[in-house]
Amino acid sequence: MKLGIIGLGQRGSMLLHEILKRDDVSVTWVCDLYEDRVQAGQEAVKNTKGTTPHMTTDAMEVIHAEDTNCLLIATSWDCHVALLKEAMTVHKPTAFEVGGAYSVEECFELVELYEKTKTPVMMLENCCYGRLELLALNMCRKGLLGEIVHMEGGYRHDLRAEVTFGENNRHYRLKEYLSRNCENYPTHEIGPIAKILDINRGNRMVSLVSVSSKAAGLSSYIKDNENTPENLKDKTFAQGDVVTTIIKCAGGQTITITLDTTLPRYYSRGFMIQGTRGMICEDNASVFIDGQDNAKDFCWNTEWNNIEKYYEQYDHRLWKEGHATGGHGGIDGLVLSAFFDAVKEQKPMPIDIYDAVTWMAITPLSEASIKNNAVVDFPDFTHGMWQTKERADIE
Amino acid sequence: MKLGIIGLGQRGSMLLHEILKRDDVSVTWVCDLYEDRVQAGQEAVKNTKGTTPHMTTDAMEVIHAEDTNCLLIATSWDCHVALLKEAMTVHKPTAFEVGGAYSVEECFELVELYEKTKTPVMMLENCCYGRLELLALNMCRKGLLGEIVHMEGGYRHDLRAEVTFGENNRHYRLKEYLSRNCENYPTHEIGPIAKILDINRGNRMVSLVSVSSKAAGLSSYIKDNENTPENLKDKTFAQGDVVTTIIKCAGGQTITITLDTTLPRYYSRGFMIQGTRGMICEDNASVFIDGQDNAKDFCWNTEWNNIEKYYEQYDHRLWKEGHATGGHGGIDGLVLSAFFDAVKEQKPMPIDIYDAVTWMAITPLSEASIKNNAVVDFPDFTHGMWQTKERADIE
Repeated sequence: MKLGIIGLGQRGSMLLHEILKRDDVSVTWVCDLYEDRVQAGQEAVKNTKGTTPHMTTDAMEVIHAEDTNCLLIATSWDCHVALLKEAMTVHKPTAFEVGGAYSVEECFELVELYEKTKTPVMMLENCCYGRLELLALNMCRKGLLGEIVHMEGGYRHDLRAEVTFGENNRHYRLKEYLSRNCENYPTHEIGPIAKILDINRGNRMVSLVSVSSKAAGLSSYIKDNENTPENLKDKTFAQGDVVTTIIKCAGGQTITITLDTTLPRYYSRGFMIQGTRGMICEDNASVFIDGQDNAKDFCWNTEWNNIEKYYEQYDHRLWKEGHATGGHGGIDGLVLSAFFDAVKEQKPMPIDIYDAVTWMAITPLSEASIKNNAVVDFPDFTHGMWQTKERADIE
Repeated sequence: MKLGIIGLGQRGSMLLHEILKRDDVSVTWVCDLYEDRVQAGQEAVKNTKGTTPHMTTDAMEVIHAEDTNCLLIATSWDCHVALLKEAMTVHKPTAFEVGGAYSVEECFELVELYEKTKTPVMMLENCCYGRLELLALNMCRKGLLGEIVHMEGGYRHDLRAEVTFGENNRHYRLKEYLSRNCENYPTHEIGPIAKILDINRGNRMVSLVSVSSKAAGLSSYIKDNENTPENLKDKTFAQGDVVTTIIKCAGGQTITITLDTTLPRYYSRGFMIQGTRGMICEDNASVFIDGQDNAKDFCWNTEWNNIEKYYEQYDHRLWKEGHATGGHGGIDGLVLSAFFDAVKEQKPMPIDIYDAVTWMAITPLSEASIKNNAVVDFPDFTHGMWQTKERADIE
């Protein structure tokens, strides 16, 4: 596989280093808007592989280059869709990084183009490969949690330093936080939740409502920290600190996801799953199986942190067999392997365009919900196919 | 104080035993719909105090009795308002147990009657006296968490056994779960949250949206457990297992509360508070102060369960001085003392009628929100007084 990488910021360069460990991929092109990043990317390839990839600051060049036959998009969020559309047009299998959409319309356009071109594309939602998330999937499928009723997740990660980072404010998050108010990063944890709930495969999201808190965290942080850039000191942020979103599914399940990135806090994806026979909770690393874990104590909260014993029994194959290596505790390696394996073996993408647009659409839907203070309908991007499409779990 | 107790079920008899420890209260009347409970109540008073209270199954008799000058209502939820109105009419200070309202109108009627009669009444929301909740209040008021932006709470308590309990299904919860779908028990944890956010005292709730999951927990429990009553086996429950509610406040804060009582789980009131300088989280017993707790580790989740060191420094006076005694880990004693002290000393009730109706109104508002799949406006029960009323913390 001759890969062109577009976007070599923090995320892109992490992925590049992960990819350079593989024997089945040649990185033939490196691309970024910034010269220094492109040069660093080329150096990395040279040093590791001894080959010299082409360099460019023009993504179109990479997409249309004769010596790329697959692509990776790891740019700022607002370029994903345009680049992905171009990639589909030239029929090159493409992995693209996570991020929300900017309109529901562009989500439908992606589906339309996919259905026309059948170009295999995959969103690199690494959290779908998380050990906890796959444990939950495994335990669900074995029926250990009963009928699933409610799930929670979130991106609860203190990004204040990242958003306000100087260096001429290259980081794309800054623009986002200044200009819009929405669930701007839904795919962790909606990805793994959607997989468990069979979204677009027997189930679908039917409505969404988001409510945003005020925006106080970044201004307070900038004021309190001397080394934040001068030009941010008088800025007003549009993005509320905590955006809570509730999604209702056709199967009657509810999902709560929370964006919480501009207040001081511990990192958590706030994963929780509740069924008629048990639950799993990330925030205290616990599994609760009815009739077993509550045998001693009705309230049971003395028994938190028992998850290790469940990993021993129900760890997902990918983790049990030691496939989880590389960045973000192993999940970056897993998600990249899933993409490259699907390309090589011409298998269906484990996170396909319908998955991707459903998760990405949460961003514009949440923006509309917040703006209009209203519950909004969730579009069906599958034109009814969700009713008959079969389950396709990560295996 | 000559107290008449109305309602001697599980809750009422717990409170009775708590009250019998006091020297400043004579229980002169005991009342319940069920003879056996009234008799047990009378026995308890006799055995402890040597006096014999009057017995009745008619609440009106207690309210109008010459030898009661204060009242306690611990009946099923659906009688609270009617009894409280009668009690206000005869000007007897009254403590009443928690529970949601059945309409917004009855909340306004309570306010109107209070404003006409000025009868001191207090909702016995014991969680306002919880050690964690008061720690949070204390730390907030000292400014340690910065500007408060978002709070979460819930009633996450596996009540399946209680709801489906046999004995001719005396327990009032059964009827509620069969007939309506709403946030049926909002006051834990909205009580302590509202106190911290100065609701009705400089702040107010402006909108609410609730989303309900399907109802699967009770049916599954009844099916799986042989000793559940036969007459429940074919019943359909209206109450969704998990109801998530988001409230937006005039001050820009958001509150998420979750009702989660019919699935297997550990007990939690899911308390969380987030400000611009720190957070407190019940579900892993942790406090996070910016620049202090994240100094070692950005993600910080290795440092959970550190709350004891914060109790050492910031425990609330009521807990530090050892006033927390009796049921529910001490909070029943605290909330009852608060009521009786206010009656004796003719002080304002620490949880007044405006607090109570605001919290109780969440139930009918959530019911309407779920039914209409819509965000609903939150009424102002203070007729604008919230803008000028001064903070009145639990001291």
